[in-house]
Amino acid sequence: MGDDQLPSWRDTPAKRSIVAFIDAVTSPDSADFVPEPDRVAVFDNDGTLWTEQPMYAQLAFALDRAAELGHPIGLRELHSGGMPALTDLLKLTHAGLTTGEFEAVSRRWLAAARHPRSGRPYPAMVYQPMLELLGLLGRSGFSCWIFSGGGTDFMRTWAGDVYGLPPHRVIGSVGATEFQLGPDGPELVKTATIQVINDGPQKPASIHAHVGQRPILAAGNTDGDLAMLQWTAASPFRTLQLVVQHTDGEREYAYDRDPILGSGTQRIHAAATENGWTLIDMAADWSAVYPPYP
Amino acid sequence: MGDDQLPSWRDTPAKRSIVAFIDAVTSPDSADFVPEPDRVAVFDNDGTLWTEQPMYAQLAFALDRAAELGHPIGLRELHSGGMPALTDLLKLTHAGLTTGEFEAVSRRWLAAARHPRSGRPYPAMVYQPMLELLGLLGRSGFSCWIFSGGGTDFMRTWAGDVYGLPPHRVIGSVGATEFQLGPDGPELVKTATIQVINDGPQKPASIHAHVGQRPILAAGNTDGDLAMLQWTAASPFRTLQLVVQHTDGEREYAYDRDPILGSGTQRIHAAATENGWTLIDMAADWSAVYPPYP
Repeated sequence: MGDDQLPSWRDTPAKRSIVAFIDAVTSPDSADFVPEPDRVAVFDNDGTLWTEQPMYAQLAFALDRAAELGHPIGLRELHSGGMPALTDLLKLTHAGLTTGEFEAVSRRWLAAARHPRSGRPYPAMVYQPMLELLGLLGRSGFSCWIFSGGGTDFMRTWAGDVYGLPPHRVIGSVGATEFQLGPDGPELVKTATIQVINDGPQKPASIHAHVGQRPILAAGNTDGDLAMLQWTAASPFRTLQLVVQHTDGEREYAYDRDPILGSGTQRIHAAATENGWTLIDMAADWSAVYPPYP
Repeated sequence: MGDDQLPSWRDTPAKRSIVAFIDAVTSPDSADFVPEPDRVAVFDNDGTLWTEQPMYAQLAFALDRAAELGHPIGLRELHSGGMPALTDLLKLTHAGLTTGEFEAVSRRWLAAARHPRSGRPYPAMVYQPMLELLGLLGRSGFSCWIFSGGGTDFMRTWAGDVYGLPPHRVIGSVGATEFQLGPDGPELVKTATIQVINDGPQKPASIHAHVGQRPILAAGNTDGDLAMLQWTAASPFRTLQLVVQHTDGEREYAYDRDPILGSGTQRIHAAATENGWTLIDMAADWSAVYPPYP
């Protein structure tokens, strides 16, 4: 592939499997050649493309906003309340605004908020090696999509700039919106009805609805991504599955369980071993974790 | 614009408004210039891009398939049964198959079925002037999307080839799918749960979910498209709204009410008059209606 386009990846089996895959599906004389329109790659976001510890950025946003709205709630309270408490928090903080208002509120928060350990703005908590991979795939004729459990509207306020993806390729969980003719013209108002929780078996269903093609590359980090990787692996084309392992307690975090929803990693690791998927050991495989800052 | 890229459009105000709009938003020195990523165009399908009389092609498919499955139902019966009868028919004919199986069944039907009046295959019932418009927009840096009341999976089996659109830009009504690990690997099974009926105020909501940007061009033909056109008209950019009128009883059909669901056209025509939207009079504005066949 000439120049090293993945400079933050050490020369380990993980990097070699990625480079070999891209070479094989893009070389016209390769037996595994895949035409450009079929080069679809899908990525989980939290914990796969950026840091999700000590909590999802969107949850930090929701807690800050709940406090601002006069209904503060602590993380411990949230944990003991389980899914109903989380749903209530999302309704309180994400509903009742127009899509334009929600975008403005999110952007304002993102500009001011800092990650509690690194002091960086959240968009600077993306993984530099994954940015390089997204760039290389884009230059290699892939269309890269995000299928995340996070909210679509929240992600789209920053993911386009940071990952270089158009909004239609950033897909997450979705609340229903209501069309109304307001005083300033037609608006979409975000409601408290959750339409899609984009996790687990919903991910392939969302990929079908939004892409309409089977991906040939999928990347995730917890059991909530397993169905997406299985769905991808069953493509008739040659495929690549990437499983990010959080092994780097010094530079990132060391853990094997989703910090909020509690999804484990046992099933996806077992599937990776059984099927020869590519495990990414952050401590061993990445020479840098984050982009330079400031 | 040099050569005439809309040869099936007569030189009438409708064509002139389209050409003037495309010129204005694509000329870099124009006050109305719109950057390429913001050039989003959305189209209704049935009655806007192809003939929907005497009934939607997808309904003809469903009636044929119901008969094949041993549950024949007539159009009169369907009419008297209203929406519940229609929903039952869709469940019977669209649920319980994997997405792969449904695609195969749809393709088989499309290859064999003929329009009752013209004797053409249904994909040859698209409007030649609209094909030319889609092509011109594509060459002018637009991304064109379909937002139809028809089913996404059914449309995607033919719309890609006919309109030259990738599957992710063909969006319609959606039934829920269920992920399962079948004997042949992971599958998505179509269920009887209707998730989205993509009509009326749902169209802007679907555009928000699937595109994440406000369009600058929208085309429709009934009141079910009104919200989509209103949503588009409120863009800060210069916009164009097209309303197709079925005025041509000789070459197509003359009617002002949706043949199955009964949506009228009164509200969209009133809005067109009030806001100076472009009315397309098929009889007067189009020199050809369909592409050559065979």
